[in-house]
Amino acid sequence: MAVSRLRPLAVAFDVVETLLSLEPVAQALELAGAGPRGLDLFFARLLRDGFALAAAGDYASFADIAAHAAQFVLPDAGAQQRAAVLEAFKDLTAHPDAEPALAALSAGGVRVVTLTNGGAEQTAALLHAAGLAGYVEAVLSVEEPRRWKPAAEPYRWAAGVLGLAPEQLGLVAVHAWDINGAARAGLATGWASRLEGTFPDFYRPADVTGPDLVSVVQGLLALGQPQEET
Amino acid sequence: MAVSRLRPLAVAFDVVETLLSLEPVAQALELAGAGPRGLDLFFARLLRDGFALAAAGDYASFADIAAHAAQFVLPDAGAQQRAAVLEAFKDLTAHPDAEPALAALSAGGVRVVTLTNGGAEQTAALLHAAGLAGYVEAVLSVEEPRRWKPAAEPYRWAAGVLGLAPEQLGLVAVHAWDINGAARAGLATGWASRLEGTFPDFYRPADVTGPDLVSVVQGLLALGQPQEET
Repeated sequence: MAVSRLRPLAVAFDVVETLLSLEPVAQALELAGAGPRGLDLFFARLLRDGFALAAAGDYASFADIAAHAAQFVLPDAGAQQRAAVLEAFKDLTAHPDAEPALAALSAGGVRVVTLTNGGAEQTAALLHAAGLAGYVEAVLSVEEPRRWKPAAEPYRWAAGVLGLAPEQLGLVAVHAWDINGAARAGLATGWASRLEGTFPDFYRPADVTGPDLVSVVQGLLALGQPQEET
Repeated sequence: MAVSRLRPLAVAFDVVETLLSLEPVAQALELAGAGPRGLDLFFARLLRDGFALAAAGDYASFADIAAHAAQFVLPDAGAQQRAAVLEAFKDLTAHPDAEPALAALSAGGVRVVTLTNGGAEQTAALLHAAGLAGYVEAVLSVEEPRRWKPAAEPYRWAAGVLGLAPEQLGLVAVHAWDINGAARAGLATGWASRLEGTFPDFYRPADVTGPDLVSVVQGLLALGQPQEET
């Protein structure tokens, strides 16, 4: 299905690894002895279980699944060390391209929200601390539809919350699995390659691709405006 | 929903890590320099992407996703080393509890099949080489319904292929995510704890739990027989 994409009226940003860096979690894992690729292992296990629940039609919170993943990655660590890994999620800071990307979208008249598999309350606090909250109209979380991305439900639920059809909403992320789910749900998509480098060919490609969030946002803003087309 | 489970008329065994050991893949990863937890990282990434596709309603083959996971785990390895990891899937051998578990079920008059996220052809060859093929009535793969476990489709499709209702089919696995998906789809479930140790409380518990496949099969055989109940 080759649709000629129009500029979305709102864009939902993924949060963890897209707007905010997991570096503090990586450091806590290293301190606890998780080894050189501790963050990769921890986050792959975390997502694996969240996605398994979504595929089965079930749900658990990011915090509950993260606690289990920490136990898997650090079987010999003490409770305190594992707790420090989970606490580090409260210290996430913004990637350098996050603020200019949100600012460019806002300046272009496009509404900005976030859509995360994490919790809404903690995400709101992080966006505030990172100086990004002023750009964000709504901090949306899968807590509400109780289904993790990349199932279709949270993307469509987010569009509904904003009073939009799925194709009027964009999703920007650094994860190919998020792009695939959003595209499948009907959203416009923008993928920044700075985390993963190459986009697996078993996922639907993004409508817009760029090396970082700013270039992706520029690509989305360059799409034809809905008014011009009708 | 507390159902009093009856003995299933057929039992589907998960294959990778349940019947067959991934030790040859672990060795190939170590040889290629993947580090001490290379297998954990490789397999978590592999399942993560297969589950992401299932959650979105999409599908790709085990081989395609495994190739991508090998690239992620071994970014600096040569093509030959990565190919050796994928080739090692052809050398999987049986866990010691596999044969006695299948034999006990067959002796108890319960039909035995396998249900894998891997390919049917390669799985059939592995079961043959491992001396297990004689117990297995059908080698079922998600290739056919084109949806990975733990989505409901492959479990229900497997029951249909065998002419059974979902509750007449059992699923035995060492992965809690597989138990959760099968339970959600209506199957009877048996979890052997030898791989994971503890069962996460965000997944539906198994009807039968034991330390190994033999004890799980004994538990399934001890369930009330359908004829006795009606």
